[in-house]
Amino acid sequence: MYHSCLNLRVRYAETDQMGIAHHSSYFVWMEAARTELLREYGLSYRELEERGYLLPVVEAHCRFSRSVRYDDVITIESSLDQLGGASLRIGYRIFRAGEENPAVAEGYTLHAFTNREGRVVKTPDFFIALFEM
Amino acid sequence: MYHSCLNLRVRYAETDQMGIAHHSSYFVWMEAARTELLREYGLSYRELEERGYLLPVVEAHCRFSRSVRYDDVITIESSLDQLGGASLRIGYRIFRAGEENPAVAEGYTLHAFTNREGRVVKTPDFFIALFEM
Amino acid sequence: MYHSCLNLRVRYAETDQMGIAHHSSYFVWMEAARTELLREYGLSYRELEERGYLLPVVEAHCRFSRSVRYDDVITIESSLDQLGGASLRIGYRIFRAGEENPAVAEGYTLHAFTNREGRVVKTPDFFIALFEM
Amino acid sequence: MYHSCLNLRVRYAETDQMGIAHHSSYFVWMEAARTELLREYGLSYRELEERGYLLPVVEAHCRFSRSVRYDDVITIESSLDQLGGASLRIGYRIFRAGEENPAVAEGYTLHAFTNREGRVVKTPDFFIALFEM
Repeated sequence: MYHSCLNLRVRYAETDQMGIAHHSSYFVWMEAARTELLREYGLSYRELEERGYLLPVVEAHCRFSRSVRYDDVITIESSLDQLGGASLRIGYRIFRAGEENPAVAEGYTLHAFTNREGRVVKTPDFFIALFEM
Repeated sequence: MYHSCLNLRVRYAETDQMGIAHHSSYFVWMEAARTELLREYGLSYRELEERGYLLPVVEAHCRFSRSVRYDDVITIESSLDQLGGASLRIGYRIFRAGEENPAVAEGYTLHAFTNREGRVVKTPDFFIALFEM
Repeated sequence: MYHSCLNLRVRYAETDQMGIAHHSSYFVWMEAARTELLREYGLSYRELEERGYLLPVVEAHCRFSRSVRYDDVITIESSLDQLGGASLRIGYRIFRAGEENPAVAEGYTLHAFTNREGRVVKTPDFFIALFEM
Repeated sequence: MYHSCLNLRVRYAETDQMGIAHHSSYFVWMEAARTELLREYGLSYRELEERGYLLPVVEAHCRFSRSVRYDDVITIESSLDQLGGASLRIGYRIFRAGEENPAVAEGYTLHAFTNREGRVVKTPDFFIALFEM
């Protein structure tokens, strides 16, 4: 299974008064990672939207094992876990950059394919083709 | 099971270019809801932290069934689902205000009790007492 | 000059590791306040957008005099400071709820009227009429 | 005057329903840029805080000339504009990466030096020394 790796530096605004990155930030990082995952498969998500396809999140999950802090560099590893008839599941593992296991967090997001009106549509053929190569 | 209800209005900043509230916002709303849930049980989370107890999120999950939009008023219903020896699980159901079922989203967060250094500690007795009444 | 007052509770996610609300949050609160200001003048900003008018921010300023903390209730006072031929300036003063002066923060935002394509347009007559009453 | 340049990619979560990056995101980007500016002067802001000095924002300003969109790569140029007896002013110019003028946004932040209790303190000598070289 192909993995994409995105490195990001934790921003001050992403911390909370516990002194660690706020858990909602991880979902934002996962989203940044899947933009790169799709790009590495040859698809710009921006272009996908311009062609009339949206990928809203229908389920999101994350387990936080260790905290990360301001100015830490993290690596978000993402991969296409499942491609359904009208959906897509992406898995994520987040590390402190340069560290091996264990991951500081692991999660997934499930997405539906919809048109601009929010109606679920079939996974487009050109999208399936990207992952068959 | 006791439910707390918090009403919030979706902010413009919480939307994204899909024209709906961004999925990471739901976790922020859940957090606001659990502040109120704890307060209704007689505990200010601010005071809990001042007493040296933190409740970091160790797992977060949400299923998004229908989208909500800018300026929608939503109700976040929260309840204590489980109280463990060193942990806490809270469940959430989000509705458009005034609407009955179905929920637009449902989720949960799992929290560990830790001290200020991030070390897991036993659920304090005064905390257990709140929920036994 | 008419003032609108919006009360909000500072969210945990809005704090940073300094233990206070992050400065970027104030701009989100100001935005929530101007939604209410416009509504009190009889205009839903949502409807304004549906009619094809947008009010992007072209300038934003805030002076932070004192910090606010998680769970503080704050009042954001907003007022229309200036209505130009194609622009709008709104002023804000933020207080801890129940406190008199001094404000914890003061700021303004300047907005252009644009159409959906982002082109600047004249302040619509129905908009001017709202503020003349 | 020394300029630091930070490149960032606009995140989906940073957009709003206008289809452009939300104005509050610019202040988060500026903050990321000043972390790098200080680092290039030889100072980790994380270490500065660990030594007991904080730099809370006391004023923030931004003028937005052109919008930026999801997936745009932007360059945030930052420089130390003024070093006062107990304060610091940093200026920012934001560009679309690879574009020359004009900037899409320009702004500044003014910071006070405080101790951990939030009391204003004199600009420390080791800090002044960094900028005299």
